Amino acid sequence: MKKVIEYIQENHDRYIGELNEFLRIPSVSTDPEHHEAVKTAAEFVAKQLQEAGMTTVEIFPTEGHPIVYAERLVEAAKPTLLVYGHYDVQPVDPIELWESAPFEPTIRNGELYARGAADDKGQVFIHFKSAEAFLNTGRQLPVNIKYLIEGEEEIGSPHLDPFIETHQDLLKADVAMVSDTAMFAHGVPSICYGLRGLTYFQLDLQGAHTDLHSGSFGGTVVNPAFELSKILTAMKDEAGRITIPHFYDDVRELTERERAEFARLPFDESTYKQAIGLKELSGEEGCTPLERLWVRPTFEINGLESGFTGKGAKTVLPAKAMAKVSMRLVPDQDPDKIADLFEDYVHALTPSSVHLETTRMHGGKPWVASLDHPALKAATQAIKKGFGKEPVFQREGGSIPVVATFAELLNIPSVLMGIGLPDENAHAPNEKLNLDNFYAGIKSSAYFLDELSRSGL
Amino acid sequence: MKKVIEYIQENHDRYIGELNEFLRIPSVSTDPEHHEAVKTAAEFVAKQLQEAGMTTVEIFPTEGHPIVYAERLVEAAKPTLLVYGHYDVQPVDPIELWESAPFEPTIRNGELYARGAADDKGQVFIHFKSAEAFLNTGRQLPVNIKYLIEGEEEIGSPHLDPFIETHQDLLKADVAMVSDTAMFAHGVPSICYGLRGLTYFQLDLQGAHTDLHSGSFGGTVVNPAFELSKILTAMKDEAGRITIPHFYDDVRELTERERAEFARLPFDESTYKQAIGLKELSGEEGCTPLERLWVRPTFEINGLESGFTGKGAKTVLPAKAMAKVSMRLVPDQDPDKIADLFEDYVHALTPSSVHLETTRMHGGKPWVASLDHPALKAATQAIKKGFGKEPVFQREGGSIPVVATFAELLNIPSVLMGIGLPDENAHAPNEKLNLDNFYAGIKSSAYFLDELSRSGL
Repeated sequence: MKKVIEYIQENHDRYIGELNEFLRIPSVSTDPEHHEAVKTAAEFVAKQLQEAGMTTVEIFPTEGHPIVYAERLVEAAKPTLLVYGHYDVQPVDPIELWESAPFEPTIRNGELYARGAADDKGQVFIHFKSAEAFLNTGRQLPVNIKYLIEGEEEIGSPHLDPFIETHQDLLKADVAMVSDTAMFAHGVPSICYGLRGLTYFQLDLQGAHTDLHSGSFGGTVVNPAFELSKILTAMKDEAGRITIPHFYDDVRELTERERAEFARLPFDESTYKQAIGLKELSGEEGCTPLERLWVRPTFEINGLESGFTGKGAKTVLPAKAMAKVSMRLVPDQDPDKIADLFEDYVHALTPSSVHLETTRMHGGKPWVASLDHPALKAATQAIKKGFGKEPVFQREGGSIPVVATFAELLNIPSVLMGIGLPDENAHAPNEKLNLDNFYAGIKSSAYFLDELSRSGL
Repeated sequence: MKKVIEYIQENHDRYIGELNEFLRIPSVSTDPEHHEAVKTAAEFVAKQLQEAGMTTVEIFPTEGHPIVYAERLVEAAKPTLLVYGHYDVQPVDPIELWESAPFEPTIRNGELYARGAADDKGQVFIHFKSAEAFLNTGRQLPVNIKYLIEGEEEIGSPHLDPFIETHQDLLKADVAMVSDTAMFAHGVPSICYGLRGLTYFQLDLQGAHTDLHSGSFGGTVVNPAFELSKILTAMKDEAGRITIPHFYDDVRELTERERAEFARLPFDESTYKQAIGLKELSGEEGCTPLERLWVRPTFEINGLESGFTGKGAKTVLPAKAMAKVSMRLVPDQDPDKIADLFEDYVHALTPSSVHLETTRMHGGKPWVASLDHPALKAATQAIKKGFGKEPVFQREGGSIPVVATFAELLNIPSVLMGIGLPDENAHAPNEKLNLDNFYAGIKSSAYFLDELSRSGL
């Protein structure tokens, strides 16, 4: 590995040059005016992978933006790694807040400023260079490698799942590598090993068959907005615990090791509160903020609508009230089972004076990897060597759909090795990437290939 | 009175002819395309009052539609009656649902179909004809009479209160007559003697300074939509009683006589439920539906808005939640006092994790006349003679702002002698007026002038 790491260190300037070329392509996937640029970015990725030494490189068209696939299979007995990433970027608005042009990469104080620097061009790029480093120093790759790089992540990946579904053989692998998240904090390299799931509902309550005058009818007619408020209020108790019967039955408790891992994370509550503009945090009693964010389920109202919401006053007694609600789920809660429990409960809470309609909007399973999984152990060693520091194990409160897809369709775990930082403005002006993390990321990626080959997978 | 009543009976056909002329004028006050017609209607009213024998008739311009004023003062010692009504009408949409053209009056089965037939042209017209009947049969009017007929009732009377405020001397009277409501039911002539008041609020709750991702932040951040639901839910107990401290302190209990009056009203709960599309009624326990509609205060949510309300699902944790709420008030609740109580209570219910802003939107005092007032006694006798049937005493759940204005600015009670019916489609297609009630209304109006002169007022 010595030669490989030396090679990486010697090529820093070239890496920056090539990444800048990548970043100059304004591949804004949501904007029709940039569709040619999105195509150019796909071609850039293909060329990078070709030059890195992949034996197969193919640009698969979709009904949207193309998917770039590449592979180099070295030996059937070796583990196979599937690297996922995306070459599309977020829009740049509000453009006037950028200190340097979003598609003219600029280095200031060790940070590379450009749209896509952290999300995800800079992060996916490290995995191109790690493979290249082995092959350009006269070595074979220590594992079989496959790349799946899409151009629609920022618009919800509409064609990714269908592609994976129809290319399961092509994508067959032992583990996936996803670098599209942030480290816990600067100087705290991290592995994300768990994500929450989701079940999302729309509730529609109907009272009278039409809106009525609140003077002429008020006092005799059910108010669905009030009944909806009552139902929603009943969903949580004073301790912030969800009251749906059997809701917590399948919630997996934290292990002692996880609790210890969380405890050593440098979570600063006052910084966190300040960032979101709150004087105090809320949530379930008896749990730390990180536990409430990552390993405890939630019930949230996402939207409310009823009656008159314009300017001024209208004395209407609404006929309808609507709420969008969702529950974040944790292992081992099953979204379908929770949805059933929720529906039963909400119907039981609804008085006979209103008609309730529940609509299941969407759901996703929670995900968690075992900290003992060989791939996670390999990643731990790789980060330790690449960053010179033991990584922390963290989770995320949201979902990363592709991780769930890999688990469901390909039946493989993912290693979420994010080298971004929480303050890198992924979807905001002045997106940036810390160059020390970028270089350490390339090294870590190279070490990971080596560690994975010896992981026993 | 015999001659007057005979005269009225002999002139039925002429009345219909003149009323039809009035109804053919498309005086839709809200529609700029009809503004010329609104002016024509004002001129028609002035001409009618001139021909009826008023000694002063004046069309007062306003910044909107004109106000027609007329008077005939016969003797300072006699009571003075102020007749209020309006000559503007509602729009006709949806036009395709009309069985005959809205501005082409048509009689079918004893009902006169036209926009404005009941609301309010047909009703105000009876008071033109009663005065005329005295004067055209060689008699003097038994009381002093003043007319205040506006053209902006259907758009909220924006220029009426200022006009009354600046013409208090001109409008000085002992009692007002307002015929712009419906009788309790067909064959049940009614006097409305009480109206509910109102206080209306907007509540705005703010949590974090911006909407947040419900996955990344859910579990640690207050949800203002949930807190709003809790606050609103706390406003009423399980018995449907409002929980605001001291809310009921000033609620006047029904007298035995009122309770007896209400009990003899032919209220059919199943018809009522069917009309509004409900299987059961709601409201405060221990009160009859009519009591809940007329003499018990209410708390209603008029509008709700928070977060994402479009199609589909968005996993947003809203920063804001808004509710419009209002309370219908009954004698002797004071809107300002109740507004203070409400504000104190809602602030006490709001947790420190959210910021609450309350906005007072508007309010109005409840109103009730004494059943022993001489004008109400005169109206009772007049209806008894005009309709051949004792009237019932009812209240209304809503407000009629002009009645509150008369009480406040002119310090006079109003007699609400509606000759419309609840099913006459006042604001809907196929508006109609029952002609039997129309003729009985003219007679009752004439009898009322006579009774009022001997009422002792």
